[in-house]
Amino acid sequence: APSTLIIDGKATAATIRAELKERADALMAKVGKAPGLAVILVGARPDSATYVRMKRKACEEVGIADFGVNLPVEASEDEIVAAVRAANEDERVHGILVQLPLPEHVNEMRVLSEISPEKDVDGLHPANVGDLALRGRNPRFVACTPRGCIELLHRNGIEISGKSAVVLGRSNIVGIPAALLLLQENATVTVCHSRTKDIEARIRDADILVAAIGKAHFVQGSWIKPGAVVIDVGINSVDDATKKRGYRLVGDVDYAAAKPVASAITPVPGGVGPMTIAMLLQNTVEAGERALTA
Amino acid sequence: APSTLIIDGKATAATIRAELKERADALMAKVGKAPGLAVILVGARPDSATYVRMKRKACEEVGIADFGVNLPVEASEDEIVAAVRAANEDERVHGILVQLPLPEHVNEMRVLSEISPEKDVDGLHPANVGDLALRGRNPRFVACTPRGCIELLHRNGIEISGKSAVVLGRSNIVGIPAALLLLQENATVTVCHSRTKDIEARIRDADILVAAIGKAHFVQGSWIKPGAVVIDVGINSVDDATKKRGYRLVGDVDYAAAKPVASAITPVPGGVGPMTIAMLLQNTVEAGERALTA
Ligand SMILES: NC(=O)C1=CN([C@@H]2O[C@H](COP(=O)(O)OP(=O)(O)OC[C@H]3O[C@@H](n4cnc5c(N)ncnc54)[C@H](OP(=O)(O)O)[C@@H]3O)[C@@H](O)[C@H]2O)C=CC1
Ligand SMILES: NC(=O)C1=CN([C@@H]2O[C@H](COP(=O)(O)OP(=O)(O)OC[C@H]3O[C@@H](n4cnc5c(N)ncnc54)[C@H](OP(=O)(O)O)[C@@H]3O)[C@@H](O)[C@H]2O)C=CC1
Repeated sequence: APSTLIIDGKATAATIRAELKERADALMAKVGKAPGLAVILVGARPDSATYVRMKRKACEEVGIADFGVNLPVEASEDEIVAAVRAANEDERVHGILVQLPLPEHVNEMRVLSEISPEKDVDGLHPANVGDLALRGRNPRFVACTPRGCIELLHRNGIEISGKSAVVLGRSNIVGIPAALLLLQENATVTVCHSRTKDIEARIRDADILVAAIGKAHFVQGSWIKPGAVVIDVGINSVDDATKKRGYRLVGDVDYAAAKPVASAITPVPGGVGPMTIAMLLQNTVEAGERALTA
Repeated sequence: APSTLIIDGKATAATIRAELKERADALMAKVGKAPGLAVILVGARPDSATYVRMKRKACEEVGIADFGVNLPVEASEDEIVAAVRAANEDERVHGILVQLPLPEHVNEMRVLSEISPEKDVDGLHPANVGDLALRGRNPRFVACTPRGCIELLHRNGIEISGKSAVVLGRSNIVGIPAALLLLQENATVTVCHSRTKDIEARIRDADILVAAIGKAHFVQGSWIKPGAVVIDVGINSVDDATKKRGYRLVGDVDYAAAKPVASAITPVPGGVGPMTIAMLLQNTVEAGERALTA
């Protein structure tokens, strides 16, 4: 369809960041304090270091104080836990994020569950996931990427209630919380994964498709229901000799083939990706507002 | 089909209770202590009083010590919370259950979240629901009715992995945890509710149907996929002049019409119902074993 809406995550994220800057400024004007984020980075994986740098830069722009901690790759689990606990106790810190993955010798689950649920801006603490799953409870924080997906739907006027939503993938950081959010928004939700049979038929049935499996161009254009809304979370690199770096990033959906069939679609890059950091900032500003104006 | 398996929840629950009695006896032999359950009942609703009486009787049979508390209907929220906290601190108590519904003036959510996640035998604490939703975490407790549904499937040799499972209803006590359990067991899971469109088509697609909406005979026999497994959680009373009490209990599925189409089906009563108490006892014995043999 010539009228397919290309959902512009970059522009939406920029709008949200501008809104958040206003909220942080207002907080500063009111109580003389900024929302504070502690990003805990262990080791020096180049990808993790890049993500952390992007997060810290974004914080600075919005007016979030940065209480980042860098630990060497040899840091013991106890040392990492100690850094988390120090951030839990630090009144200037309203959000704590442990950059994943942690080194092999560290029990990620144990470290993550040490983060106070009150400061869990990544929304991965079981208490916050439980509050998301249960009706009648408001989670303090929702995982950033799924929250970004829903925000894109909301800000583009896409109705969710009563729609058939299919989530591909059931990871803790994307698939599961995305499914719980869509259910909260009154979609009829189906979760698919590597054991799903006839996944093509499932996808054909989706009014709203959220793809988060990490397989380049897995979803073919012909599988998309005409008029469906496609939210592509996947970030996969495929060889591309025409690019200077030798590869390019693509989603889990064959974008070019799906676009003419869908009524709305997120590109990769520039769709869900920029929303993840925006939602991290939003979770942090909200936590700061709650703590400082309570 | 003449060979439809009638899933006998009463017999399965009796088997489980016998197993639990052995485990409680073994614990007593080993450490000289019994698993302990505190059922907190507020007010005197006849249905609640009946349920609590059944639970206490079942505890006694299995060898679970009863630390029940009865509070008057006028008890304040703070008094109920105080009873929960006392049970949290009591070392003889391994499981705490607050009988619902609580009187109107009480905030149920607040009371429930006071129960220590370590003693939450009802499995409704957000921390335990979060652990159920997240992969790689083991919830200490899973809600009794959904756990009973899965146990019926397991003990009847019904495979779940790779199957299409449809859950009707999304309540905190049945639908949501049932969906999360089925997903954990590698089913492809769809959750339907009052906003679902074309629910009949969803049901037709189910290899495993879990019905928990509380509408007598809502699911028609012709909607069942031939060979499907039907787990009927619903308990609804319908007028019946042939009965002395003037009504009888039926499920959410039209049992007589669904039975010939299904490969296996739970009757109402005598299907899921008896499993709920059995799972409460199991959660309590497991909690006792963890606490007393740690
Ligand atoms: N835009 C952003 O900011 C973010 C993007 N991402 C991207 O999203 C994608 C998913 O990430 P993440 O959730 O962390 O991935 P995980 O690897 O943790 O999970 C992948 C999920 O997809 C399922 N899956 C894998 N292969 C198939 C298949 N062939 N058919 C059906 N299901 C399959 C897996 O099933 P099973 O459970 O059975 O193994 C699993 O549930 C990645 O490309 C990642 O880079 C992730 C986070 C943020
Ligand atoms: N066997 C046992 O031990 C137990 C049996 N039960 C029985 O199970 C049934 C469900 O109980 P419970 O989960 O507490 O019920 P709730 O009333 O809490 O939830 C009912 C759910 O069904 C959905 N629903 C209601 N009407 C329809 C409809 N027409 N079409 C589709 N969905 C609908 C609701 O949707 P929405 O969310 O959109 O409102 C809601 O999610 C009851 O009959 C109850 O007696 C319950 C617990 C234990």
